[in-house]
Amino acid sequence: MGNRVVIIGGDAAGMTIASALRRRLRDEDEVIVLERGRWTSYSACGIPYWVSGEVASADALVARTPEEHRKVGIDLRLGVEATAIDPQARTVSVRDGDPVAYDRLVLATGAEPVRPDLPGIDGQGIHGVQSLDDGQVLIDALADGPSRVVVVGSGYIGLEIAEACVVRGFPTTVVERGPRPLPIVEAPLGELIADGMRARGIHLQTGAAVTGFTLDESGRVAAVRTERETFPADLVVLGLGVTARSALAADAGLPLGPKGGIVVDEHQRVEGFPDIWAAGDCVATLDRVTRGLVHLPLGTHANKQGMVAADSIAAELLDEEPRLAFPGVVQTAITKFCSLEISRTGLGEEQARDAGFDPVVARIETTGAAGYMPDPGSMTVVVVADRATRRLLGAQIVGSEGSALRVDVAATALAAEMTVDEVVMLDLAYAPPFSSIWSPVQVAARAAVKALAAS
Amino acid sequence: MGNRVVIIGGDAAGMTIASALRRRLRDEDEVIVLERGRWTSYSACGIPYWVSGEVASADALVARTPEEHRKVGIDLRLGVEATAIDPQARTVSVRDGDPVAYDRLVLATGAEPVRPDLPGIDGQGIHGVQSLDDGQVLIDALADGPSRVVVVGSGYIGLEIAEACVVRGFPTTVVERGPRPLPIVEAPLGELIADGMRARGIHLQTGAAVTGFTLDESGRVAAVRTERETFPADLVVLGLGVTARSALAADAGLPLGPKGGIVVDEHQRVEGFPDIWAAGDCVATLDRVTRGLVHLPLGTHANKQGMVAADSIAAELLDEEPRLAFPGVVQTAITKFCSLEISRTGLGEEQARDAGFDPVVARIETTGAAGYMPDPGSMTVVVVADRATRRLLGAQIVGSEGSALRVDVAATALAAEMTVDEVVMLDLAYAPPFSSIWSPVQVAARAAVKALAAS
Repeated sequence: MGNRVVIIGGDAAGMTIASALRRRLRDEDEVIVLERGRWTSYSACGIPYWVSGEVASADALVARTPEEHRKVGIDLRLGVEATAIDPQARTVSVRDGDPVAYDRLVLATGAEPVRPDLPGIDGQGIHGVQSLDDGQVLIDALADGPSRVVVVGSGYIGLEIAEACVVRGFPTTVVERGPRPLPIVEAPLGELIADGMRARGIHLQTGAAVTGFTLDESGRVAAVRTERETFPADLVVLGLGVTARSALAADAGLPLGPKGGIVVDEHQRVEGFPDIWAAGDCVATLDRVTRGLVHLPLGTHANKQGMVAADSIAAELLDEEPRLAFPGVVQTAITKFCSLEISRTGLGEEQARDAGFDPVVARIETTGAAGYMPDPGSMTVVVVADRATRRLLGAQIVGSEGSALRVDVAATALAAEMTVDEVVMLDLAYAPPFSSIWSPVQVAARAAVKALAAS
Repeated sequence: MGNRVVIIGGDAAGMTIASALRRRLRDEDEVIVLERGRWTSYSACGIPYWVSGEVASADALVARTPEEHRKVGIDLRLGVEATAIDPQARTVSVRDGDPVAYDRLVLATGAEPVRPDLPGIDGQGIHGVQSLDDGQVLIDALADGPSRVVVVGSGYIGLEIAEACVVRGFPTTVVERGPRPLPIVEAPLGELIADGMRARGIHLQTGAAVTGFTLDESGRVAAVRTERETFPADLVVLGLGVTARSALAADAGLPLGPKGGIVVDEHQRVEGFPDIWAAGDCVATLDRVTRGLVHLPLGTHANKQGMVAADSIAAELLDEEPRLAFPGVVQTAITKFCSLEISRTGLGEEQARDAGFDPVVARIETTGAAGYMPDPGSMTVVVVADRATRRLLGAQIVGSEGSALRVDVAATALAAEMTVDEVVMLDLAYAPPFSSIWSPVQVAARAAVKALAAS
């Protein structure tokens, strides 16, 4: 008799697991996916580019349709919302239906946008951008030609939606409670981003925590209120980050970490629950630099964790040794605002201090090509190193086109626990159209070496 | 009383050493540089872009002028050619002058272009592109408007000069003895480069070893001859690679490795000659993957080796411990031909086999951005892995703009001796404008994992 694996959630992690299990398990084993929406395997990260018009349709963002998943033998049940799990009875309760029994369970429930309990937040014209359905609603609203868009929050989503509004020509205000946009980068880089946003016509208001929304008599948003100021708006987009969608897990007593992320081991098995795995935006992940847990809801991690979870489940059901383990993350991220590219990896100075390191920070400016080449570009690179061990702890880049991906050198060096001295000696690609003779991350690492010697 | 350090050669390695020593040594110590030419610290790699017109003048390629070096106290002697060294007497003989005594000696004599002993090779109109003076001669010759340029060899220099000729609109033939251009990349990538060259109007002739040059009665080149065919030419550029310029070292009995590269230890000290260091294009370097010696004349290595040599000499003269060591190279290189970018690192399949590995090769095609983005670009990535240890051995990329620098991830992973499994689990930057959800090198590493499982 076969085993039954039930997966709750049909996006990146869930469908990666379902597909991998379908390939590896026996025909008599069942792979059931319960998805409360109507979409599968889509790129939420692509929504801002659909909003901007660079991507033509939601369909383009769907990597695999429900039909394609069903064709390979996955029992995909759309519009089915799991309401509770019972780890003892090994069942999942669903809204409007009989409980579904499982032998092995996977939670791939994703993340949900932060939606603070502010006066007026349920007014018409206040949008989130988490799902494809959200995206369609926003696009329809923009089609009405709002006279003033206000984006609340300037994290990645806030920045990307602001860019989309600029591309489409809507007057746009960005309201950020912190002192600078994109709080996940160091202050001087945040200032560069602020400059870039203002240069493209964004009205950027920092240090402005939203206190509520003014609605007109029809219940439509008319303004965004902060303590000091009120910003007129007929369309609002919330970009206040996300938390793990882990209420199901919490109710069943599963262990939760930062931002509600489910705590799992390196095979994505939930700590203390041998029949349950979790992967993707709903889990807490290990940070390879601090060895602590973080919540980092990104498609790259969801895909890898999905591979690992599927491997672990298949190995157990087939009585094999697991081949994969998820080593954790180094908090790499990349985005852009118009022509300004932005990336980071590892720890910022404050994060490093919080994690118990004694950080030394170096900041440099360099070019993207040899300085004598026409239009060599420019970028600012920050490197954080640990005084005691000389280890690289993090790197961040803001610059012109071709800058940001260079952070991958640092991301790789972080995984290898390299010192800044070792980074300086890396054999990185050089030719005049691509780099000055020292690659940007190396220029910054050299500055860190100097700073270490001086301190 | 001070010590005297004599450095032979005033380009990247030599002047890096002179500058670093001048900063660290005591005022009574002398730092003398003997340079046979009239330029210092220039970017030879920039010459093709000067030839193409993208760089306005030779001056732009000079990082530091003789005057700037002298201003900081370096005793720079231009036009002084060292003719012999005597390690016992610790003297350097020079043409037309008294021998120069030294306490410590550095050889930074660079590389010299291969110039095979073929009939007619000394004819007028046959150019090398090693020095700034060569560059000027070539630019003057091109100003005459040649009717047909023939580039002999299609390594990096051959390719870059061919590009410069295309940019400037000269009918150009490239003659390559091997079956494909750029023999340092795997065959399928070489084919892509061949296609790219032909698409830009280059007449590319492969499998064609040059047998000689036909000169007209005035001694000017009129044609390039191969065994099968004769190519009319009124201007010829030789791009046949370089060897270490190490005759001085050889005459003095110093140990030589591949292509005449001087054999040094990790502090750039010449093996068996405690008072002599060498750095830059004249040395043999350790390959970190094979642990064997290679000759890799690149400015990046010259700069690092210069830092290391200076540190070693200063430490010895100041009775300190050396802080730096040169860890070797991984054979990273990058170039482009018009809009086609090309990069490599580590070992190709044949190199891997020659080094005693059992290589598994995977080749993939992917995009530079998420596939649904407008104009996501395309690239082909080859990864070589070792069957026994699963270690990454090398990676190569050919693709559209934004492709080639991604090789730096592999270069960093090689330094860390990562397996392909570890590369797959790296936390690399992802956002739709920059990458598909798996970074190109990871897509190839995943293919290598699959190939390892299949074999």
